[in-house]
Amino acid sequence: MIQEKREVPLVVVKRLPRYYRYLGELLRKGITRISSGELSKRMGVTASQIRQDFNCFGGFGQQGYGYNVEKLHREIANILGLSHGYKTIIIGAGHLGHALANHTNFAKRGFELVGIFDKKPELAGKVINDLPVLPMEELEEFCNTHQVNIAILALPKSAIIEVVPRLVALGIKGLWNFSYTDIAVPEDVAVENVHLSDSLMTLSYKITEKQKQGDA
Amino acid sequence: MIQEKREVPLVVVKRLPRYYRYLGELLRKGITRISSGELSKRMGVTASQIRQDFNCFGGFGQQGYGYNVEKLHREIANILGLSHGYKTIIIGAGHLGHALANHTNFAKRGFELVGIFDKKPELAGKVINDLPVLPMEELEEFCNTHQVNIAILALPKSAIIEVVPRLVALGIKGLWNFSYTDIAVPEDVAVENVHLSDSLMTLSYKITEKQKQGDA
Repeated sequence: MIQEKREVPLVVVKRLPRYYRYLGELLRKGITRISSGELSKRMGVTASQIRQDFNCFGGFGQQGYGYNVEKLHREIANILGLSHGYKTIIIGAGHLGHALANHTNFAKRGFELVGIFDKKPELAGKVINDLPVLPMEELEEFCNTHQVNIAILALPKSAIIEVVPRLVALGIKGLWNFSYTDIAVPEDVAVENVHLSDSLMTLSYKITEKQKQGDA
Repeated sequence: MIQEKREVPLVVVKRLPRYYRYLGELLRKGITRISSGELSKRMGVTASQIRQDFNCFGGFGQQGYGYNVEKLHREIANILGLSHGYKTIIIGAGHLGHALANHTNFAKRGFELVGIFDKKPELAGKVINDLPVLPMEELEEFCNTHQVNIAILALPKSAIIEVVPRLVALGIKGLWNFSYTDIAVPEDVAVENVHLSDSLMTLSYKITEKQKQGDA
């Protein structure tokens, strides 16, 4: 069912969420047109890169008129698949799971949070973001009833091994993984890892580099 | 003061945290030598990429003997600057700040958590991970006394604008930014952004792609 001819290179795809975010901010400010030059200044990306990136998916810029912000915003949303309304559950109702549940952008990003699970009995029944925390025993029935597509893993590494196969068996299509480990899943399951420690190490590297530059 | 000849390309640097993580797991299992082939299987990266990457910083592999895990682990730690013991504070003691404070890997990654701040008066005095939550009024004095280098921004976007200039004025060298916005800082301040919404959008894109592949 690949109807669309266009193929957006992965390196461009990686930049799309940021473009989408900026365009959304412009829309909220009532800005309907913007030139690649202006967008460049706001985003700290060269104007020529912006033009090249946008050309990958049709390039809506008009010489001298700039880009139609709303159209571009909508097109990027389509490419990213943000209008799907994926039914989403969070597994792990600790501070991280809690923080993610309160994360207000789920709906805007095409995800609908429908359930939160935790194996700790003392958390059962606690209400987070209008959703009661459910025990892990109810996972299978809940996912089947609600046709859950996505699971967010806000769990320690040790708990992952047991949970992932259950989710895969339930036909989950995507995992947002916050555990400090890479996970093995079948080909047709999408995984996005958020390894916070890796990010912290990248910060450490950046600081080291800045200091070298400063000392040079 | 760039004494070292070697320059590690950024694309390799990006992979270092993951190598570091895997090598640490091997060490904990008592594995002292590993071939690029074995490491390749465990990490899902080609053996030739591993060899190329490690060559960038000296390449400790010996034909037929494999890599010395401990040496490699230490060398990567050095490149990433993980032995600095940067004094670190978290700003924002909500669920996200709390989750990050409990994040057990700070010390292992060369960061020492010394303080947590929040502007909400009702959180003042609450103890998280043995540290009392401090009011924002004490930020300047605390940072000067404790020679804080790093701040973790677990704050809403709206609060960022006021806080970042205060941190920059205090001589903070690195910011780990969890707010849903890009921040502007002087050249010598390192910033690592964790835009969770961008990651969620990337997951959305990956799911869309997998579905296209499945339907094709």
